[in-house]
Amino acid sequence: MPRTGRRPGNQDTREAILAAARQAFAERGYDKASIRQIATSAGVDPALVHHYFGAKDQLFLAAIEATIDPGKAIGEVVSGGLDGIGERLVRTFVTVWDSPAGTPAAALIRSAVSHDWSARMLREFITSQILGRVVCNLDLDPKEAPLRASLVASQLMGLIMARYIIKLEPLASASRETLVATVAPTIQRYLAGPLDGLDQ
Amino acid sequence: MPRTGRRPGNQDTREAILAAARQAFAERGYDKASIRQIATSAGVDPALVHHYFGAKDQLFLAAIEATIDPGKAIGEVVSGGLDGIGERLVRTFVTVWDSPAGTPAAALIRSAVSHDWSARMLREFITSQILGRVVCNLDLDPKEAPLRASLVASQLMGLIMARYIIKLEPLASASRETLVATVAPTIQRYLAGPLDGLDQ
Repeated sequence: MPRTGRRPGNQDTREAILAAARQAFAERGYDKASIRQIATSAGVDPALVHHYFGAKDQLFLAAIEATIDPGKAIGEVVSGGLDGIGERLVRTFVTVWDSPAGTPAAALIRSAVSHDWSARMLREFITSQILGRVVCNLDLDPKEAPLRASLVASQLMGLIMARYIIKLEPLASASRETLVATVAPTIQRYLAGPLDGLDQ
Repeated sequence: MPRTGRRPGNQDTREAILAAARQAFAERGYDKASIRQIATSAGVDPALVHHYFGAKDQLFLAAIEATIDPGKAIGEVVSGGLDGIGERLVRTFVTVWDSPAGTPAAALIRSAVSHDWSARMLREFITSQILGRVVCNLDLDPKEAPLRASLVASQLMGLIMARYIIKLEPLASASRETLVATVAPTIQRYLAGPLDGLDQ
């Protein structure tokens, strides 16, 4: 028996909004995509988009079917500043990926490497939802921040590939603390250490 | 006009051997797969496999359609020992990936994340053709070597993802020297630095 208050029409409208959102984020990027334009594409009023999904970052998370909100986890990671950031970031990252929430995230990565569309979405997700927040909340030189952030992303994506997708041993079954102890210094250096390569 | 000396039958035989080899490597792994068993599966004499493809490592490279032989490049990288290994490894790695030889390698990675079969092949490739050679030729503690090698693989796979597949800026268009300067210390530490996480 269908639940009251949930008509098929609502579901269709939600899906139409999500489809328009995916297209807009992939084509225009997170920053340039607008709720107004997404609403127009979906043939609905912008207020309805807000009503269903809230702000743009929430709509984006719904569009990529994310099961966690990285904003909250990242807020805790960056709140302590640069001191110990590597350890906090790796511990939080591995905890989330080892949890059930990691499964849809792995699906996005799998999809990203085989479809240009998903690759653009993943790039937008990493840039706007993760790196942007990390960089904004840390005291980094604005000239160095983008390279530092993309180096962090490279090590964390590689950890995902090795541990969860390719399942390369002994990394695949290493304990969380082993990963924190070995990978955290890399993240710490990428964010807070000297980057000799920046002048090249 | 078909070239003389290259009958269709030969091509069919080559393809049959390659198909049997892919199946054997994926199912049994590089070490356990044997030329004899591959020949039997393909319905040919083992001598014919050797005639067409040479030794097992060459057959493996042909099976994954590799356009470079990592053995040669890695030989030069490891010949200098642990001192400066990070810099030599990153420079060689980026040089190969920036060259036309990187295209089929990227295809294998794309395929690996969407197909379990390719993931197993990629894991075998990384383990037997790359990490095995690096570890054998460096003076590493045998207890630590596998974790060190898989950490190196995680950073290098992440670099591939960020630079060549997701195309995350500024890493995607960074100069080779920038990558060497920023990533080499990570590789150096993974191979030669203290690994506090090993006792956990």
